[in-house]
Amino acid sequence: MSYRGPQAFRRAVTELARLPGIGEKSAQRLALFLVRSEGKYVQELAEALADLTRKITLCRTCFGLADTEECGICRDPARDDGLICVVEEPSDLMAVEQSGQYRGRYHVLHGSLAPLDGVGPEHLKVRELLERVKGRPVREVVLATNPDVEGEATALYVAKLLGEQGIRSSRIAMGIPMGGHLEYADQVTLARAIAERREFTVR
Amino acid sequence: MSYRGPQAFRRAVTELARLPGIGEKSAQRLALFLVRSEGKYVQELAEALADLTRKITLCRTCFGLADTEECGICRDPARDDGLICVVEEPSDLMAVEQSGQYRGRYHVLHGSLAPLDGVGPEHLKVRELLERVKGRPVREVVLATNPDVEGEATALYVAKLLGEQGIRSSRIAMGIPMGGHLEYADQVTLARAIAERREFTVR
Repeated sequence: MSYRGPQAFRRAVTELARLPGIGEKSAQRLALFLVRSEGKYVQELAEALADLTRKITLCRTCFGLADTEECGICRDPARDDGLICVVEEPSDLMAVEQSGQYRGRYHVLHGSLAPLDGVGPEHLKVRELLERVKGRPVREVVLATNPDVEGEATALYVAKLLGEQGIRSSRIAMGIPMGGHLEYADQVTLARAIAERREFTVR
Repeated sequence: MSYRGPQAFRRAVTELARLPGIGEKSAQRLALFLVRSEGKYVQELAEALADLTRKITLCRTCFGLADTEECGICRDPARDDGLICVVEEPSDLMAVEQSGQYRGRYHVLHGSLAPLDGVGPEHLKVRELLERVKGRPVREVVLATNPDVEGEATALYVAKLLGEQGIRSSRIAMGIPMGGHLEYADQVTLARAIAERREFTVR
């Protein structure tokens, strides 16, 4: 007979423990923090979370997160229409945005090809991408899927289909991370960094 | 200009990042998980959290968590009235309960004496403890505050006041944790374990 607090407390712990990376012990710690927190914080948190499902949908154009039919990036007239960056997840879109290096449009596939897990092209927003570029002045599609087996396969697949429509694809560079050390780089990354070396001109 | 998603999403990230141990990046990961989660989970989580502040109060007797005036432990007639375990926080009460070794009552102080942080006895539920034991058949108060400077000072202070009322106090044992190794124990713990060694009778 293990005591875990009154019912409303146990329920909060159970719900919090369903979050990724939050175990039973962390959930209890969070719930205790919430019980002790002052002011309107818990109410504000609860409302913010309820709002997530009520207000957030997928953008009809790029399938990123949006609270209107089209997301802020797709509505931004200052963005380059000729460039589309293809990513696996909305979090990848945010990561690219936060790099500050990209001013084109996006397309979120919502996953990567994983035949062993039963994820085929029909589960991704691939058809939507092909529809989207059809007859549009798209100069280049930047394939920014993850550099793992699934991401590589997905990039290859998408590039092939785009090529059939006469659209150029590019792949983000893979190599030693900035600030990294060759000594600590894994063999595959280092092999890739050497194979994809670039000319280095000193003037 | 860093893009962090639509407004309702950013708001959820901001609120989640106020939780202890949850940084900006984890908050974003949790919010993305919630956006993608299926069914009623987000709604259930939001309700469970809102319920926390609506339903959870402090037990009027032991000041543990309760969803009625008195908590389940204080209302339990099978518990030993002669024994009160004094802890710092509701989480400590749960930890002691989960050990399965204790069948008495509890008293939660809601903190420990920390004069440097301005926490004096008047900020803790000490007066309430003294009121509670007055004229009651309490055989022993188990002081289960943490074995750190503040917890030790608090135990000492409470024991002194209880002694003046003729009530016996005891302190939880401190020493090498079960399954631990002497080699890895800190000096203070090891010194304590030796100083508080117990007679060991082999029959």
